[in-house]
Amino acid sequence: MSPFSDRLIAQYVDEILQGDKIYLSKAITLLESQHIEDRSIGLEILEKVMPFTKKSIRIAITGAPGVGKSSFIEIWGNHLLETHSQKLAVLAIDPSSQTTQGSILGDKTRMQTLSKHKRAYIRPSPAGQTLGGVTAHTRECVLLCEAAGYDLILIETVGVGQSEIAARSMVDFFLLLVLPGSGDELQGLKRGIVEVADWIAISKADGENKIRAEQAESDYKNALHLYTLPESGWQPGVSTCSSFTGYGLDLIETQLKKYVALTQSNGYWDKQRQDQHLAWMREIIDIELKNTFLQKPAVQHLLPLIEQDVLHRRISPIKAARQLLGLK
Amino acid sequence: MSPFSDRLIAQYVDEILQGDKIYLSKAITLLESQHIEDRSIGLEILEKVMPFTKKSIRIAITGAPGVGKSSFIEIWGNHLLETHSQKLAVLAIDPSSQTTQGSILGDKTRMQTLSKHKRAYIRPSPAGQTLGGVTAHTRECVLLCEAAGYDLILIETVGVGQSEIAARSMVDFFLLLVLPGSGDELQGLKRGIVEVADWIAISKADGENKIRAEQAESDYKNALHLYTLPESGWQPGVSTCSSFTGYGLDLIETQLKKYVALTQSNGYWDKQRQDQHLAWMREIIDIELKNTFLQKPAVQHLLPLIEQDVLHRRISPIKAARQLLGLK
Repeated sequence: MSPFSDRLIAQYVDEILQGDKIYLSKAITLLESQHIEDRSIGLEILEKVMPFTKKSIRIAITGAPGVGKSSFIEIWGNHLLETHSQKLAVLAIDPSSQTTQGSILGDKTRMQTLSKHKRAYIRPSPAGQTLGGVTAHTRECVLLCEAAGYDLILIETVGVGQSEIAARSMVDFFLLLVLPGSGDELQGLKRGIVEVADWIAISKADGENKIRAEQAESDYKNALHLYTLPESGWQPGVSTCSSFTGYGLDLIETQLKKYVALTQSNGYWDKQRQDQHLAWMREIIDIELKNTFLQKPAVQHLLPLIEQDVLHRRISPIKAARQLLGLK
Repeated sequence: MSPFSDRLIAQYVDEILQGDKIYLSKAITLLESQHIEDRSIGLEILEKVMPFTKKSIRIAITGAPGVGKSSFIEIWGNHLLETHSQKLAVLAIDPSSQTTQGSILGDKTRMQTLSKHKRAYIRPSPAGQTLGGVTAHTRECVLLCEAAGYDLILIETVGVGQSEIAARSMVDFFLLLVLPGSGDELQGLKRGIVEVADWIAISKADGENKIRAEQAESDYKNALHLYTLPESGWQPGVSTCSSFTGYGLDLIETQLKKYVALTQSNGYWDKQRQDQHLAWMREIIDIELKNTFLQKPAVQHLLPLIEQDVLHRRISPIKAARQLLGLK
């Protein structure tokens, strides 16, 4: 008999709905598993808690390495837990992280008070290609956390690759952190990221940095002025803040509240959620179709060789694609 | 016997390599065909001319409807044919166009002198989903035109959807046209487009518009200043121009030449071409995998129904995807 009887699955569902962190973590680990069977059980648990999701505010927090995302989340997270949130979850998409199997040691050292907070839950996404892809996993984590009663979910990304596009497709509000300066802080960030942000916060606006931060604030305000209103009807803005002094965190929270009020009243909130839901289904289909193809032994063997041939123009991309598609 | 004997294919190849516009058009029509057999013959022709491609400069020209893309291409195209280019091809990706089967009437009326020019070739991409997708088609057109001796290829897109991302993935240089004003001209453009442009040209800088155009130029310069150098090592810039007076076209050409010189010497030119080649192969694989899936009768029947169920939360995206993937 399978170690996962229906009774055990029901127990998982119960415990998650009651907010048990250990069962929540174990369910996420099942979903992240490379074993199709484990993942399948994870999906069954997720299916069962789906009716209890949808109630949180989901926020992406993106910024280049060094901008101070962890300090920001540590202090803002604690602040939100006092003012706004019953329960806060922090999920990190870090493509460079070597974390696996749900170890949260890395984040424990980074967000010391938050990780000890009774009403907070911190979980990094494992690195590497997994069965469902990082996007699907983080999305699934969001839903499990919602089912476990988390009403505010922060998704942390470093914004250097596909991760912030993934994040954009699963959050309600996108917050971009940048350092004071004149554009250097965008170094290494994926181009296009400024234009998808709902709010830009200039971090480390304290001490000698304060004047430079205010200069950057005005530069970004001028730049944002060039873009017209996004579909949400919300005008993205800029402000300065400091995780050291706590300055400016209130303002970001106020803007977040205004954004939620505006988009919930103009219908964009629900529309975005619906679109994301449909996009998620298409994403799963795409990922599964590609996985099935890439897992063929002949493809695994030939793909790297053929890619080299294409790069060196020994074969045309058309012929290469057709050869690979013809493999059994 | 097939109407396309090897001899006929060889004739196509010969005529295209000699620059015959009629054979070029007919080959493009074959590639655009909904009939798998026609398309397959088109691909065979393309395969055979592939060794003669790679020699052109490929430029995307993007801008919202009303910005004056056609006038710009008409006058700049003629200008380039005098100064820079032996042969110029203009390919348009227009998602709203109802053009099919290679009719170029629409563009003939839009670009009157250019369309009559002996050394110019104008071809719109047909609308709608075709076997290879618009991206693949336009890419194939580019290659056929190169084989036919076109050394400058302009790809016109309206920049409202996926088309400019597609264009970005197949050109060397990305030119964005905007109207004088303060951001309103970006209305309707896909967000993120400013950040992928290699050059921004403020159009219609003549008469009373001149001062507003110069103001916009300075606004965009300040905004671009916030972004750091793209991977190409090329600093994108802004200038004003007028298709009415011809003002500013020289400068854009000079910048284009500088871009080509820089990226050809720092290795980015070749790298970008190689990357695009590999991306093209992956694109064909993705498209074919998805087409094979979407063409299953059961999927065609159920997909619209299940999408509605997902939108209205009657079924979870996971279950929906699994149901569809399980169809024979």
